[in-house]
Amino acid sequence: MISLICETTEQPKGIRGLGGKEWAMAEKMKAVVKTERAEGAEFVEKDIPKVTPDQVLVKVQATSICGTDVHIYQWDEWSQGRIKNIPQILGHELAGEVVEVGNAVTKAKVGDYVSAETHIPCNNCIQCLTGQQHICGNLKILGVDCDGAFAEYIAVPETVIWKNDRSIPPQFASVQEPLGNAVYCTLVEPIVGKSVLIFGDGPTGLFAAGVANVAGAAQVMIVGRHPVRLDIAKKMGADVLIHGHDEDVEAKVMDLTHGVGVDVVLDMAGTQVAIDQGFRLVRKGGRYSAFGIASGRVDWDINNGVVFKGVTIYGINGRLMYDTWYQLAGLLSSGRLDISPVVTHMLPLDQFKEGFSLMMTRPKVSGKVVLFPDKALMPE
Amino acid sequence: MISLICETTEQPKGIRGLGGKEWAMAEKMKAVVKTERAEGAEFVEKDIPKVTPDQVLVKVQATSICGTDVHIYQWDEWSQGRIKNIPQILGHELAGEVVEVGNAVTKAKVGDYVSAETHIPCNNCIQCLTGQQHICGNLKILGVDCDGAFAEYIAVPETVIWKNDRSIPPQFASVQEPLGNAVYCTLVEPIVGKSVLIFGDGPTGLFAAGVANVAGAAQVMIVGRHPVRLDIAKKMGADVLIHGHDEDVEAKVMDLTHGVGVDVVLDMAGTQVAIDQGFRLVRKGGRYSAFGIASGRVDWDINNGVVFKGVTIYGINGRLMYDTWYQLAGLLSSGRLDISPVVTHMLPLDQFKEGFSLMMTRPKVSGKVVLFPDKALMPE
Amino acid sequence: MISLICETTEQPKGIRGLGGKEWAMAEKMKAVVKTERAEGAEFVEKDIPKVTPDQVLVKVQATSICGTDVHIYQWDEWSQGRIKNIPQILGHELAGEVVEVGNAVTKAKVGDYVSAETHIPCNNCIQCLTGQQHICGNLKILGVDCDGAFAEYIAVPETVIWKNDRSIPPQFASVQEPLGNAVYCTLVEPIVGKSVLIFGDGPTGLFAAGVANVAGAAQVMIVGRHPVRLDIAKKMGADVLIHGHDEDVEAKVMDLTHGVGVDVVLDMAGTQVAIDQGFRLVRKGGRYSAFGIASGRVDWDINNGVVFKGVTIYGINGRLMYDTWYQLAGLLSSGRLDISPVVTHMLPLDQFKEGFSLMMTRPKVSGKVVLFPDKALMPE
Amino acid sequence: MISLICETTEQPKGIRGLGGKEWAMAEKMKAVVKTERAEGAEFVEKDIPKVTPDQVLVKVQATSICGTDVHIYQWDEWSQGRIKNIPQILGHELAGEVVEVGNAVTKAKVGDYVSAETHIPCNNCIQCLTGQQHICGNLKILGVDCDGAFAEYIAVPETVIWKNDRSIPPQFASVQEPLGNAVYCTLVEPIVGKSVLIFGDGPTGLFAAGVANVAGAAQVMIVGRHPVRLDIAKKMGADVLIHGHDEDVEAKVMDLTHGVGVDVVLDMAGTQVAIDQGFRLVRKGGRYSAFGIASGRVDWDINNGVVFKGVTIYGINGRLMYDTWYQLAGLLSSGRLDISPVVTHMLPLDQFKEGFSLMMTRPKVSGKVVLFPDKALMPE
Repeated sequence: MISLICETTEQPKGIRGLGGKEWAMAEKMKAVVKTERAEGAEFVEKDIPKVTPDQVLVKVQATSICGTDVHIYQWDEWSQGRIKNIPQILGHELAGEVVEVGNAVTKAKVGDYVSAETHIPCNNCIQCLTGQQHICGNLKILGVDCDGAFAEYIAVPETVIWKNDRSIPPQFASVQEPLGNAVYCTLVEPIVGKSVLIFGDGPTGLFAAGVANVAGAAQVMIVGRHPVRLDIAKKMGADVLIHGHDEDVEAKVMDLTHGVGVDVVLDMAGTQVAIDQGFRLVRKGGRYSAFGIASGRVDWDINNGVVFKGVTIYGINGRLMYDTWYQLAGLLSSGRLDISPVVTHMLPLDQFKEGFSLMMTRPKVSGKVVLFPDKALMPE
Repeated sequence: MISLICETTEQPKGIRGLGGKEWAMAEKMKAVVKTERAEGAEFVEKDIPKVTPDQVLVKVQATSICGTDVHIYQWDEWSQGRIKNIPQILGHELAGEVVEVGNAVTKAKVGDYVSAETHIPCNNCIQCLTGQQHICGNLKILGVDCDGAFAEYIAVPETVIWKNDRSIPPQFASVQEPLGNAVYCTLVEPIVGKSVLIFGDGPTGLFAAGVANVAGAAQVMIVGRHPVRLDIAKKMGADVLIHGHDEDVEAKVMDLTHGVGVDVVLDMAGTQVAIDQGFRLVRKGGRYSAFGIASGRVDWDINNGVVFKGVTIYGINGRLMYDTWYQLAGLLSSGRLDISPVVTHMLPLDQFKEGFSLMMTRPKVSGKVVLFPDKALMPE
Repeated sequence: MISLICETTEQPKGIRGLGGKEWAMAEKMKAVVKTERAEGAEFVEKDIPKVTPDQVLVKVQATSICGTDVHIYQWDEWSQGRIKNIPQILGHELAGEVVEVGNAVTKAKVGDYVSAETHIPCNNCIQCLTGQQHICGNLKILGVDCDGAFAEYIAVPETVIWKNDRSIPPQFASVQEPLGNAVYCTLVEPIVGKSVLIFGDGPTGLFAAGVANVAGAAQVMIVGRHPVRLDIAKKMGADVLIHGHDEDVEAKVMDLTHGVGVDVVLDMAGTQVAIDQGFRLVRKGGRYSAFGIASGRVDWDINNGVVFKGVTIYGINGRLMYDTWYQLAGLLSSGRLDISPVVTHMLPLDQFKEGFSLMMTRPKVSGKVVLFPDKALMPE
Repeated sequence: MISLICETTEQPKGIRGLGGKEWAMAEKMKAVVKTERAEGAEFVEKDIPKVTPDQVLVKVQATSICGTDVHIYQWDEWSQGRIKNIPQILGHELAGEVVEVGNAVTKAKVGDYVSAETHIPCNNCIQCLTGQQHICGNLKILGVDCDGAFAEYIAVPETVIWKNDRSIPPQFASVQEPLGNAVYCTLVEPIVGKSVLIFGDGPTGLFAAGVANVAGAAQVMIVGRHPVRLDIAKKMGADVLIHGHDEDVEAKVMDLTHGVGVDVVLDMAGTQVAIDQGFRLVRKGGRYSAFGIASGRVDWDINNGVVFKGVTIYGINGRLMYDTWYQLAGLLSSGRLDISPVVTHMLPLDQFKEGFSLMMTRPKVSGKVVLFPDKALMPE
């Protein structure tokens, strides 16, 4: 199945793109490639992918590093079991321009300014047929199950293309994918006038603080570990910053909610401590969004945390296709949501090692790291 | 039924309030009273109401004028048929302090800073039993079916009391009732990332612009007639101001939505023109909230405006009791929603005629007019 | 746009279907064709359609007559304006077997037992991208915008194919399309324990009675004109049959609901009388589903019927793609919903004139009329 | 707080009930009382409770035994910590007639045929003010926090009275409370056309099978341990009976759902095995209702069971007040839901020990056990 999606086909040379228009394109490109089943990645020359009939070729303008990329870069246990194809181009968050479309492509056009949903649905299972493509029963993931976006070009199925408003610069358009996680996680139920407690100060937690702020939450509280990141949360609109290591999280939240607990918990940490605190702090009748990935099975007080309280829990994976993207477009192009505080670093693609280093060894300072294949397109 | 709700009982003199505590209160108060079945109202002395067992007595700090009050003041056809009891104290929007509670009151306490829901539910009909008290089958309305709030004191059933956060000043706490209309009308379905088109630049329309703005709408458009009011809409966060008299409303909206139409229409005008434009401009699959009161039956293109488009229409009356009030509390006490631009006039209660005049003859300049029984409590 | 969808392409003869498998198929077929812009239709020989890359060819086992087909057959004003291509094969409700698939088809397989959604979505507009394909902004309709199903074979885009459970016989599988209207219209909000009032005793109204019955309504009332059809409604599970011509509909319904009104109104008639009665009879806080097509604009008591009552109205067009089909599959294959009382007539396709006659001149007796291109497949 | 709710007041002798009508009532009654902090209960004479102003006195016609009553009867660890007042009358499920009302009672009338919600809400907390009275922040429970229903008479606050349709016999009206658990748990989201898997063959599981059946589920599967109870499930409409001890539950369910998993899991068992199986068997995007009480904290595969699958979990406690009761009324009075197979035993109240014995020592045979204070009212 994977091969089908990632497969490229031979098309007549020189006659590429929509309408038989000849397009002068180089044959080779530079890409960040996992070349061996070991830690690290290399910046190497690769053939520019050839599109299958249902794919489009995107010239990547900006591409950003996700925690998943770090896992694969570090070649941890999860990635050793998950990644099937080596060599493989890393990365899945992107913004760029369509430069070529396959024969069966009907909607995308050369010149479109696009990002891509990284969840590639089969469009045939019960999930896909009932509005849940983001958790397709046969889901493939860009940059995990096939070549990714840390490259000058990427070929993706037309069905995962999202057309961006040109008012959104590439560094922001690229991070819409993780921002979409935050939007879906935060807004799976309305939050207007409600208290929201976020666990985790990673980029998704910081995005969630911004989303809760501009969507009308009454009180946005965030529990994190890193003062620099909590400062970013403040810029995004968080009202209460809680230093998980130094403060009594439960006492503080209960005090701020007059002993009632919070209306909404967003778990973007996935630790046993966060899960325990979350289920103790969510109020009776409240909502708990589970987005963070735990290190394994957890210990759960289902009686007191869920049943007696009548709590609703949403498992959150991906983003709604494409309701969430439509929300993103509205929030970003209207200017109501400003995500610039979270995009802390921009680097040329060939400095990807510096980017990974920022993500791995200096977690206290980095938000999102965006890479640019073409240095000329980097904002000054 | 009305008499039951509005009825006052004789209680032993001198021993009033919770716990048998004696409270030194004057016997008389000043109030704006409809004394005859004719236009106008008078500022007269009345007995301070005595609470029934389930009522609380509120010392009014601020009370604001609603369009309904203007109808009754003008003694138009509707009010001639609707108002049963003359003399009657006018008004229903208020903020104040509880100074006395009836024997059967269990939750409100003397000293509470409160506003009041004006829809008095029976708590026994199917609506009341299934979360729709705001449209109770036996609904009574404060200031319409019984004495109202344009007075130094008002007695209301405990069940319609809402405790305010003390950070909200009386002039804002008083207008929560119409603000609640706007919140319910706007947020009956989520609007994050959606385009919203408001018809009507009365106070509720202006409030709705603010609510749509702070709840994350992509684009807030408002159609009005009065430049001064559209300026207020801009301060509340409207992105697009449309002068209904001078501009081609449909062409402008269709242009701004790339020919698709808007996601959400809020009708706060109720005119045939607004209704026609609204159903033409709402997009396929969009939402239409009907809050404005029409002058009678209307002409309706149900096929093209509703059925073929798959549009959902919500009739909006009142506010959810008390989900909407909880949202209001969060939006106001957090400071996310600033309604000061809409509260354009503040006057002592004895200048109520000036207030009505502002509402009736100078609609181009007035937003909400708030009256203060005690001049000393007026903001400078 | 229409041509694109309906267009057939030349493919190499003899090498048809998936996997290059040769399939011996006749070149010609019989079909019911609108040959002239005038009343009637003819049973003529046509080329078997050739599939485009994204289409499948279905051998029709059963196809049923819809009111829309009757409009086109009669060549009324609506159809004169709506139908662009003459000659055109009529019909859009069907069940059959896939006998060939286009080159780009990835999910459907030769041998699949299928029905078809008649709403052909573009999959590119905001409706299609947010779960509302059934009201696509660029919607095409089978048998209206392109050749239909009253034939031995039909070519349809793979995206509108729905795979049927083989336990459902063709005459029932074919009528899933209008049954889907009834399911969507009835269940757009849950009805368990609620009173449901249906206006209209056409097939969709009869189906709705059955759906309300098996989905747990407290009371299923139907207003109709034809005793024979009301008898069918009774077999489908209606509790109360109301003869619109002979009874005081409003008095009867108000009596049955103790003066409260009904929780849910389903308008499947579209007449001014039904609309007026519906908005008077729906209770405060109730739901009104508008499915019937009015003869033009209507007169609407928006104040008393919608705003003051807080009523929610759903415009219903088509069926959710494919949530409704999934519900249909569950209801039919489980045996919980038995629609046999509504399928009153089965005829060979060449007797289509008898079928239309049953629909037009004998409305008092006919429910759904199903046609069989192959007489051998007709149930005894 | 408890004392307030359970407290009785002295009223003038001889002049009791609404309207000053004298009602000849005995002073004493028989009741099943927990007289000591030890196993068991006694059938003793008690004063007939005197109503407080907001209470009604109900003459109990039928009262049924719940698992909670068994816990208190057995005096297990939970009940030792939970029960504050000894002696206390046991029981909380009931049907009966109002024979007296307190001075402040406004809706209930002498002669009303009623049941009672056992969750006594404060009507003042955020839960009560936003439609979640069933999980009130200051919740009291009938028969747990104050005297219960295993008696000839019980005094309950007017706010928890539900008026029954007289077509529902007392033995069914009494079990509406646990039936309401099943209705809420099953229908917290619609199930029409969906597959439903129930864990647990206790009365609530059996009720849930019936509810899923009459509300239009595609497939109702139940996992139980006791053949006699699974037979009852079959009578209630379950399609698939799975003997948890003897069959491979997961293999069977996956086979029946073609490897997809079920749309809806209802956990009414609360065991670690059921929880593990439930989260493995719920499909991607499915729903899980948690009603069963676990013996303590559990081990939870949150990643694979919830996050990656995008599963929604509802903690279920009590019943919606009073949306669920309204659904119950509709299902029972319409005859669509027949619960007679679950009501397996009816006994005079003085044979309560036999009733408890049936619940404790013969779980393989008993469904609900209903007790009658007045033998003359027992069905033959």
